[in-house]
Amino acid sequence: MKVLALSGSLRAASINSMLLRAMARLAPAGISVSVFQGLGELPLFDPDREADCPARVAEFQRLVAESDALIIASPEYAHGVSGTIKNALDWLVGFEAFASKAVAVLNASPRAHHADSALRETLRTMAANIVESASISIPLLGANLSESAMMATPSVVSAIRESLEALRQGVKSLQSGSSPTFSIR
Amino acid sequence: MKVLALSGSLRAASINSMLLRAMARLAPAGISVSVFQGLGELPLFDPDREADCPARVAEFQRLVAESDALIIASPEYAHGVSGTIKNALDWLVGFEAFASKAVAVLNASPRAHHADSALRETLRTMAANIVESASISIPLLGANLSESAMMATPSVVSAIRESLEALRQGVKSLQSGSSPTFSIR
Repeated sequence: MKVLALSGSLRAASINSMLLRAMARLAPAGISVSVFQGLGELPLFDPDREADCPARVAEFQRLVAESDALIIASPEYAHGVSGTIKNALDWLVGFEAFASKAVAVLNASPRAHHADSALRETLRTMAANIVESASISIPLLGANLSESAMMATPSVVSAIRESLEALRQGVKSLQSGSSPTFSIR
Repeated sequence: MKVLALSGSLRAASINSMLLRAMARLAPAGISVSVFQGLGELPLFDPDREADCPARVAEFQRLVAESDALIIASPEYAHGVSGTIKNALDWLVGFEAFASKAVAVLNASPRAHHADSALRETLRTMAANIVESASISIPLLGANLSESAMMATPSVVSAIRESLEALRQGVKSLQSGSSPTFSIR
């Protein structure tokens, strides 16, 4: 199973990016997680350029199309989604291969509910299949953990592994046509 | 009174941009509205670059600081704010001169309430003074009006003039210390 992971923060020490890198390193056999590095270089969404996409957007869309699932971890800025993650999603709204994609939405700051809700509302509107069992909250904000500290924290490691297993089951159900773990509201 | 107008859409035929250009042309004596052209060239927000802002961001911030008020008109994409407008605001969250700025939020598509609510929640979180009496809905989406047709439509022209007058009153009350027209929730 190929998973593309998107962090909504460009900060080098972003806990969302660290969490996704930890997931990539902890992924069990049969699951490959790759953290997309290019969100910060996508141009701002321009509907006039959708038909003939800029090269960086086309490359992003190709990686999305080739993935069985996406994982999104994104910060909340001023009670809203980050412009960076929303901009990436804006380029996928009209991209056919995104619809019905399995998506896990991670929240590293469970008290930040505005961005989490808004992100889910947008993903549902885009016809994504949010895999609820894989969409976990891990209270990392303020915990001041480095990536290696995360990987040495048993509760974080088990949460990551459970999320990835749930995502695998979700993708399997989706591919087999039954989708008991999905919540499409 | 100097007003900086921001359109959340980069589409050439954007109704939000057309509405703002019509406002600039219809502004009465004493109010100068200038539509910012550079939102699409701002880099994506990177907290690591806030202390030493990219030149385009610094120029945007300078224009914001020099304005007495902002007008924002932005589309809704997939039940969310556009990445473009949120990215611009992300660069203003930590910018001191933005706090307590008078802001009018226009909505050219009154049925699109998700983005409008999210934008207002973000602006309130950023300590903006949303001038409610100037924040009008004008049902333009689907009306297929050109900019000159807008300017020849009496209901649109009067809505624009009333919004600008209300914004002027709002700025005046704010500068005089009383702020009866503001809603800071």
